[in-house]
Amino acid sequence: MEVELKKGERVDCLERKNYKIIQDKDRFCFGMDAILLSGFAQVKEGEQMLDLGTGTGILPILLEAKTKGRHFTGLEIQEESAEMAGRSVQLNHLEEKIDIVTGDIKEASKIFGGATFDVVTCNPPYMTEHHGLTSLEEPKAIARHEIKCTLEDVIRETSKVLRPGGRFYMVHRPRRLAEIIHLMREYKIEPKRLRMVHPFQDKEANILLIEGLRGGGTMMKVEAPLVVYESQGVYTEEVLRIYGKI
Amino acid sequence: MEVELKKGERVDCLERKNYKIIQDKDRFCFGMDAILLSGFAQVKEGEQMLDLGTGTGILPILLEAKTKGRHFTGLEIQEESAEMAGRSVQLNHLEEKIDIVTGDIKEASKIFGGATFDVVTCNPPYMTEHHGLTSLEEPKAIARHEIKCTLEDVIRETSKVLRPGGRFYMVHRPRRLAEIIHLMREYKIEPKRLRMVHPFQDKEANILLIEGLRGGGTMMKVEAPLVVYESQGVYTEEVLRIYGKI
Repeated sequence: MEVELKKGERVDCLERKNYKIIQDKDRFCFGMDAILLSGFAQVKEGEQMLDLGTGTGILPILLEAKTKGRHFTGLEIQEESAEMAGRSVQLNHLEEKIDIVTGDIKEASKIFGGATFDVVTCNPPYMTEHHGLTSLEEPKAIARHEIKCTLEDVIRETSKVLRPGGRFYMVHRPRRLAEIIHLMREYKIEPKRLRMVHPFQDKEANILLIEGLRGGGTMMKVEAPLVVYESQGVYTEEVLRIYGKI
Repeated sequence: MEVELKKGERVDCLERKNYKIIQDKDRFCFGMDAILLSGFAQVKEGEQMLDLGTGTGILPILLEAKTKGRHFTGLEIQEESAEMAGRSVQLNHLEEKIDIVTGDIKEASKIFGGATFDVVTCNPPYMTEHHGLTSLEEPKAIARHEIKCTLEDVIRETSKVLRPGGRFYMVHRPRRLAEIIHLMREYKIEPKRLRMVHPFQDKEANILLIEGLRGGGTMMKVEAPLVVYESQGVYTEEVLRIYGKI
């Protein structure tokens, strides 16, 4: 099948099943955060997954490659991004397994209905401040800042679309951990597993990965730290494994 | 000055200022948790500190040794423990700097008044279940299980006795992190600094250290992981430094 590329777009190879993904350097390109989330999230055989704010479609595509999930959906508010993600799905012949839907996270439960998914993933905008932004409509700004949706929107809609006992996986910044835990509990998604990501062994965490259980009890665990670099520019074995490079 | 030892008591040497501490193997002896908390807590020059559930008095004694705080108070509900901690204070000639008060954490704000302290520390009972306990009055059971006070009691009273901008330092178990953060925020003690303690680099955390700020804003940081053992039975340099052994 021929899939057309638009001006400024490129095709990147993923390390899984030879899948490919279309990206546009003027839009938000996926980073290590998305890769780490794909390594942290678990989709079991037969489960249905929704990715909120899917961007390039990287999470549905990687999780389709890595798991035995039955069906994967990516929701994306930016029309051009959703259209590009849809072409990545075609490029990998995954139309039967992955749907890309154009729509607003704030309306996820209206779009999909309540208690619909076994798993929800999200790599949301991290920043609350809009200071220094020249345009609130710029694609990268929307991906990085809470312009179109807040953390509370993400967690509230997740709580609605997850079936009881369903699981939520999110990547975010440690500096917002208290808010994240507070909001998850408020919306009945009990934090169950937390992993801190540190650039180096002796540096503070700059990424966190969290799993919550819809309607779960109150005990959680904090996993071994994930250290990204062995030394300057050299990834640790674990990170290479998550990327699928070894 | 002569300080009398009772049957079953022994005197242990601390690695700070040659201070000594009386312990009784039939009561709760301090463990690594208290030492790590003494390394994590900060008491600045001239500040007044309260330790909730002080047991042997280890935290006031160590923090007096390590900081320039003006005054230190230990609150302990078990009369025999409080009396023994008081003798440790005498043994080190610290009667001017440290008060040991017999009383209930649940009444801390009645005992000391509101907005009284710059710093509160706590190494509370970790366990919620009372399953398998033969007696709810046994000293070790009271130190380990939420019999005389709950996590919520500790945090509520801390919030009352801390002055605005005062700091709270607690050691606890990672499995209760979500509850801890939720309760701290509920009582206006914003989590600001979190450190996970892992027995080994590749094992999940079994201790957490948390700092909260009375009335603080919502950003926090997660520090580099603290790893206890380099290899089986061999402490890491950082832990040896916290113990004052190097």
